[in-house]
Amino acid sequence: MTTGSQTSSVDKPMPLDRSALKPGLWSTAIKIRFGHCDPAGIVYTPRFFDIFNVAIEEWYNARLGISYYDLIGPRRTGLGYVNAHADFFQPACMGDTLEIAVDLERVGTSSFALQLHAFNGEAEALRGRFTVVTTDLTTHRSKPIPDDLRVALLDYAKS
Amino acid sequence: MTTGSQTSSVDKPMPLDRSALKPGLWSTAIKIRFGHCDPAGIVYTPRFFDIFNVAIEEWYNARLGISYYDLIGPRRTGLGYVNAHADFFQPACMGDTLEIAVDLERVGTSSFALQLHAFNGEAEALRGRFTVVTTDLTTHRSKPIPDDLRVALLDYAKS
Amino acid sequence: MTTGSQTSSVDKPMPLDRSALKPGLWSTAIKIRFGHCDPAGIVYTPRFFDIFNVAIEEWYNARLGISYYDLIGPRRTGLGYVNAHADFFQPACMGDTLEIAVDLERVGTSSFALQLHAFNGEAEALRGRFTVVTTDLTTHRSKPIPDDLRVALLDYAKS
Amino acid sequence: MTTGSQTSSVDKPMPLDRSALKPGLWSTAIKIRFGHCDPAGIVYTPRFFDIFNVAIEEWYNARLGISYYDLIGPRRTGLGYVNAHADFFQPACMGDTLEIAVDLERVGTSSFALQLHAFNGEAEALRGRFTVVTTDLTTHRSKPIPDDLRVALLDYAKS
Repeated sequence: MTTGSQTSSVDKPMPLDRSALKPGLWSTAIKIRFGHCDPAGIVYTPRFFDIFNVAIEEWYNARLGISYYDLIGPRRTGLGYVNAHADFFQPACMGDTLEIAVDLERVGTSSFALQLHAFNGEAEALRGRFTVVTTDLTTHRSKPIPDDLRVALLDYAKS
Repeated sequence: MTTGSQTSSVDKPMPLDRSALKPGLWSTAIKIRFGHCDPAGIVYTPRFFDIFNVAIEEWYNARLGISYYDLIGPRRTGLGYVNAHADFFQPACMGDTLEIAVDLERVGTSSFALQLHAFNGEAEALRGRFTVVTTDLTTHRSKPIPDDLRVALLDYAKS
Repeated sequence: MTTGSQTSSVDKPMPLDRSALKPGLWSTAIKIRFGHCDPAGIVYTPRFFDIFNVAIEEWYNARLGISYYDLIGPRRTGLGYVNAHADFFQPACMGDTLEIAVDLERVGTSSFALQLHAFNGEAEALRGRFTVVTTDLTTHRSKPIPDDLRVALLDYAKS
Repeated sequence: MTTGSQTSSVDKPMPLDRSALKPGLWSTAIKIRFGHCDPAGIVYTPRFFDIFNVAIEEWYNARLGISYYDLIGPRRTGLGYVNAHADFFQPACMGDTLEIAVDLERVGTSSFALQLHAFNGEAEALRGRFTVVTTDLTTHRSKPIPDDLRVALLDYAKS
């Protein structure tokens, strides 16, 4: 263990101003509900990952044009996470509406990486990073990204 | 955006074998419930952060001897996260019991860093990393770690 | 304990057809997400109560014109439940959109009763019943319904 | 709609004192966590249904000797609810431990009814009632209670 007053700078990204966001990113609005919040009166941290997952589902459905529910259901294709990360810049309260923009950072053979910027008004309140791996839901082993999803991802990356 | 088949090695920690875990770490058992799991039949990722939070609460209460509920409640001391991260090595299913060990990585002035190793049998199923910041729950601004908590943290770090 | 093949008829309300719903009720659409669902592939029952709570919050905000978040927050007025009940007619799956109509059944001095009809297409998938009691959030004791809320409730009842 | 100051007495069960509980009922302890609670500082109502579900799962596993996870998983037998009900007598706070006793009220052909008494200290804090129906998870239609489960239920009813 180390002691000291500083977190390394690697661990401390700076929040973006909304005007500095890369243009062309798809975003969705999610309202913070009573049930998202904890006795400290702000969103309970684990719930933010649920909120991010809803934004990602909607991005597949509404922007990529590929139903998340068909992929997971009849197509038996898992869209699980190898890792999930969030940096919290400021708390969010019930009644706030977060505007969550999805950035695609990398597309590999059987995985891709997403960055999610959640704005509360003009300031970024939190940022998520997820590495998604496509899996076979019967074996829970990774498999190549399905062709239609790959095409849609690469198309989104150009936008 | 970049394309390619590899995730950088920085992003890919290797799971530990339980026998390789640092001795002396406190741990707690948490059973995976039906309600933790999703239509893929495995734990829904955001729920893991809730499971980690329960382990952390219990660590304060049972090992550090400082009530999490008193800190948040009457003492108005937030124990929020600046960041939260998890690496997923293998899925967990309903009925599994995770043994979650808490490692204290760093103690600063108003923050500290935790690493949580969650074992499913002998293999590490997932690992969490959290940077905790102590805050004033009225202003939501950071404040120094309370003295009794600091003493308990430094004592735990020596164990 | 009793044994036998029948549930008493008291316990078995019949689902409504959407066309049979009382006219003039406010309703809101809520989409079923991956995280709402369980390993049986359908909504995990406790999550329906969360979904109903979101519908009720939105009813206060959007239809009654009284912010749920102001009531709970600065106005320190709890809108807790004395009882909560749901009858389940058919399961709901991820990707489904429920249209939830709010019916106000009774207004008392410090409580009122709501019935929520959740339609999946034309058929009622489930129905909720909640008795709400207005409380002082400092003492957790009941108090009369605030005047503005009472006026809004009685107005809604006439619609 | 009706107006008036009274809820009908049918809707208002009285909380039991723990000493008045039917002897021989199996019970389990569940601790209230930070993440169970809402900005009012008490358990968020929908979370109580999740807590009840955990108690019911554990009752199958630990008292009936039939794995809930095997039933839902390999045996493809749903244990869904036709209805779910709770009466709330007093709020529960983070750090409280509820002792939840399971009473079996009725066993039918393809359904049974449970009553759950949750005590916070000596007083009943809330009570749940659930009608469980056994279903085929492929068709989501009801089917007779499996023989081993029926035997275990009838045995529990005698205890």
